[in-house]
Amino acid sequence: MKRQQLFLKLTLAVLLIAPQAVKAQFNWPYKNVNGTLVTEVPQRKAGQQSAIGLTTPKLKVVRVAFVGLGMRGPGAVERWTHIPGIEIKALCDYEKQRAEACQKFLRKADMPAADVYSGEEGYKELCKRPDIDLVYIATDWIHHFLVAQEALQQGKHVAIEVPSAMNMNEIWTLINLAEEKRLHCMILENCCYDFFELNSLYMAQKGLFGDVIYAQGAYCHELSPFWAHYWKKDANDKLGWRLRYNKDFRGDVYATHGLGPIAQVLNIHRGDRMRTLVAMDTKSFNGRKLVEKFSGEPCSDFKNGDQTTTLIRTEQGKVLEIRHNVMTPQPYNRMYQLTGTKGFANKYPIEGYALSAKEMKEAGVQPSNDDLSGHSYLSGADSKALVERYTSPIVKKYGEEAKEVGGHGGMDFIMDSRLVYCLQNGLPLDMDVYDLAEWCCLAELGALSMDHGNLPVEVPDFTRGHWNEVKGFHHAYASPADEAQTLQEAQAFTQQLKARGKKYWEKIDKKMKKGKK
Amino acid sequence: MKRQQLFLKLTLAVLLIAPQAVKAQFNWPYKNVNGTLVTEVPQRKAGQQSAIGLTTPKLKVVRVAFVGLGMRGPGAVERWTHIPGIEIKALCDYEKQRAEACQKFLRKADMPAADVYSGEEGYKELCKRPDIDLVYIATDWIHHFLVAQEALQQGKHVAIEVPSAMNMNEIWTLINLAEEKRLHCMILENCCYDFFELNSLYMAQKGLFGDVIYAQGAYCHELSPFWAHYWKKDANDKLGWRLRYNKDFRGDVYATHGLGPIAQVLNIHRGDRMRTLVAMDTKSFNGRKLVEKFSGEPCSDFKNGDQTTTLIRTEQGKVLEIRHNVMTPQPYNRMYQLTGTKGFANKYPIEGYALSAKEMKEAGVQPSNDDLSGHSYLSGADSKALVERYTSPIVKKYGEEAKEVGGHGGMDFIMDSRLVYCLQNGLPLDMDVYDLAEWCCLAELGALSMDHGNLPVEVPDFTRGHWNEVKGFHHAYASPADEAQTLQEAQAFTQQLKARGKKYWEKIDKKMKKGKK
Repeated sequence: MKRQQLFLKLTLAVLLIAPQAVKAQFNWPYKNVNGTLVTEVPQRKAGQQSAIGLTTPKLKVVRVAFVGLGMRGPGAVERWTHIPGIEIKALCDYEKQRAEACQKFLRKADMPAADVYSGEEGYKELCKRPDIDLVYIATDWIHHFLVAQEALQQGKHVAIEVPSAMNMNEIWTLINLAEEKRLHCMILENCCYDFFELNSLYMAQKGLFGDVIYAQGAYCHELSPFWAHYWKKDANDKLGWRLRYNKDFRGDVYATHGLGPIAQVLNIHRGDRMRTLVAMDTKSFNGRKLVEKFSGEPCSDFKNGDQTTTLIRTEQGKVLEIRHNVMTPQPYNRMYQLTGTKGFANKYPIEGYALSAKEMKEAGVQPSNDDLSGHSYLSGADSKALVERYTSPIVKKYGEEAKEVGGHGGMDFIMDSRLVYCLQNGLPLDMDVYDLAEWCCLAELGALSMDHGNLPVEVPDFTRGHWNEVKGFHHAYASPADEAQTLQEAQAFTQQLKARGKKYWEKIDKKMKKGKK
Repeated sequence: MKRQQLFLKLTLAVLLIAPQAVKAQFNWPYKNVNGTLVTEVPQRKAGQQSAIGLTTPKLKVVRVAFVGLGMRGPGAVERWTHIPGIEIKALCDYEKQRAEACQKFLRKADMPAADVYSGEEGYKELCKRPDIDLVYIATDWIHHFLVAQEALQQGKHVAIEVPSAMNMNEIWTLINLAEEKRLHCMILENCCYDFFELNSLYMAQKGLFGDVIYAQGAYCHELSPFWAHYWKKDANDKLGWRLRYNKDFRGDVYATHGLGPIAQVLNIHRGDRMRTLVAMDTKSFNGRKLVEKFSGEPCSDFKNGDQTTTLIRTEQGKVLEIRHNVMTPQPYNRMYQLTGTKGFANKYPIEGYALSAKEMKEAGVQPSNDDLSGHSYLSGADSKALVERYTSPIVKKYGEEAKEVGGHGGMDFIMDSRLVYCLQNGLPLDMDVYDLAEWCCLAELGALSMDHGNLPVEVPDFTRGHWNEVKGFHHAYASPADEAQTLQEAQAFTQQLKARGKKYWEKIDKKMKKGKK
């Protein structure tokens, strides 16, 4: 009741100031404070603590369930079979046969078959099981939150594909659940684990670029080869979930690939925080035509602009720029660009670094000549020397195996491996629920900005007061001794599991043969 | 008096809505209308007409005077000696010897020496002369407007180096003068004449990219090798004019290289117009350190952010993005990027186009294979075929000579040649006073946005109602017959001038010899 009154008051306040304002698409309460839109920050319940640096008891074995086995899910199941110390307990999809199909990966790895859940409510049944530690969610966007909420309520850690939450209600609910239940709620932002990003992050952490003052990320990828393949509920569903989501919602609805890696470089909620956001989009040119093509009907209400740009200023006076365009043809561009006071890194269309000879030397790398100005990309030889000297420890550890296992060139496997490593060693995850919140809030906050004629919007402090406690983003590591012991136990478990699995599938094969006879 | 009252009212209105707002740096009147800052648009005087499509009587000979002969001026003088049908009447600089030094270009071209003007008021004397058609201004930024105003008031056309006006007062004064006096007031935006930009513009005009919905421009160029060389008035002037300007003013103070070429593609005030602008900058990291280095004193009030980004949405729902960074090391980047509904063009760090095989064929260019998706850059062969088929007529006409004469790879010479061509043939210039206004307004309007916490700012309709009369940007051409006749007369004049010049310098040489004896 109180909440409703507040919302009414805030809405009226905004209407008084901006009478022509369009209603925001999600109805999360906000008000206009001196020209900036400020969304409501819910209060913590009494006794609820922040989840900054959250650790949970070591899991010798991570018992995982996968929900959503359409596009991204099957690859995850396959990758996990390569990680020691895990057990795949359950596979779940709306369509039973898609869940069943993933047993083949377990079979191939000599792991026993998992239990299968399906249908609209399958994930709810799955979440009731007491023998699951982690629910790994790769559904359509609408179900990311629904499944995660259910899993957290049932006491499971969750790892959620991107975007992990679509609006402020989902974001704050996940934060409150993670804080209250003391559970991990991780965003599966694989781009944080790509080789160039990891190495560049490591260079930034070592000070090679000076202060990184401007960082750009993007997801520019025309999805025309894919639109027809996104899951459709039934014959009446002409658009599929992704196109429909773009039709119905304005804002950068897929910001995290661009934002995640640069947010880590900028130490967001580890000494700095995003303060003010402004978004601007083009109108829908190609988007609405796609709807017309698939539906055969005219479309005049396609909300998502063909290209959306979001600018965010931080507490420390730095700027992040994020672009989204899935509608127009252009070279694939998942930009990652760091502009620093001393150097520069850039990923698309060419990977490269710009550093002066002086900075190279200070970084302990011998430049090919003393005239390097920092005003052009390093040559192949200089760049190679730099990367060799500053290869991320994570690339060193997982890089080779990741390339073999695959998944977007290896980054997916590194992500999964780090998740399991941290859970097994009882360490804080690389990405916490506040990262999830910050990287996903651009959708609704951007829409809010644009629906009000590009007004600035305050990015809430999702940590509610704790953004400046940790100094600098860092990947957590166990001591070498602990790490070795954990790994040994994990490998031993997997060995036993595979022995059991081998027998399991032999039995199945025998039955099959008998059946055939 | 009325104006002052209005300003007071508007200021009060803004203060009531945004009490913490910082005072804008230039004091041009503005108010907050539903969250958007709206600057005052002065009314046209009775009888004053728009200058859209302005033509003036053909000038068989363009009698030109150069003001400002420090960095950019001497090159302009040299280039003009290669253009037929011009006469260099006067050379002016604050420092007499810099003006005198430019006589060498006239001598080299067998053109008679020009009259020299110098000192603080030199340009005022120069502008009084009745035998000058055009004043070509390449002073420091502060004097661009002062000289242009004087010249227009004295009935001369002006061409002004970039940025041609620094704030709304200067912009509106130039517009009113050009409209009232029916004189050309051109911004010397050379980047509109670079080869990649001209060819891409031509492709865009022919529809190859479909609707260009997003266009990016930039000036990212660390000026560390140059700061020490900008003109200093005296020994007390430790910073030089350019660093001081950056110290004193926020906003994108050098936006036109990035904005000019893309504004032409987007047909700004020729069927579309810039509507809403938002700017965001980083704080000053390196900028203030430069001041400390040059002045030897601490600096806490450096206004210009190290990097500034401005987003502008147009009436037709398209977006322009402009970046400025002269402070941090990075590869030189004068970005020109066109994102269209059917294709894509990009200039930095690699020049390239992305078009599908289908679009290539529709454009009359045979693709190297039928699988081109438009999702990667065209190969060298495809790109070459495209550029050969769509070479801009201007590149065809001036390209070869421009490369010989030089000036930023030729673009400066093409710009000067087009200016003279249009004046000689009585055609509208490629860039009118409204282009100047639109391309230069980012400085003050961006500062306004940022000083108010990134509020949106309305970009005024500088044409005051005429932005939708001309449909599409086009370079004007005379009929082949007229063009040929004009050229013939121009060449004849130059021949005579050079004959006269040759005698002039021979006489001078004789005197010198006698003097020496």
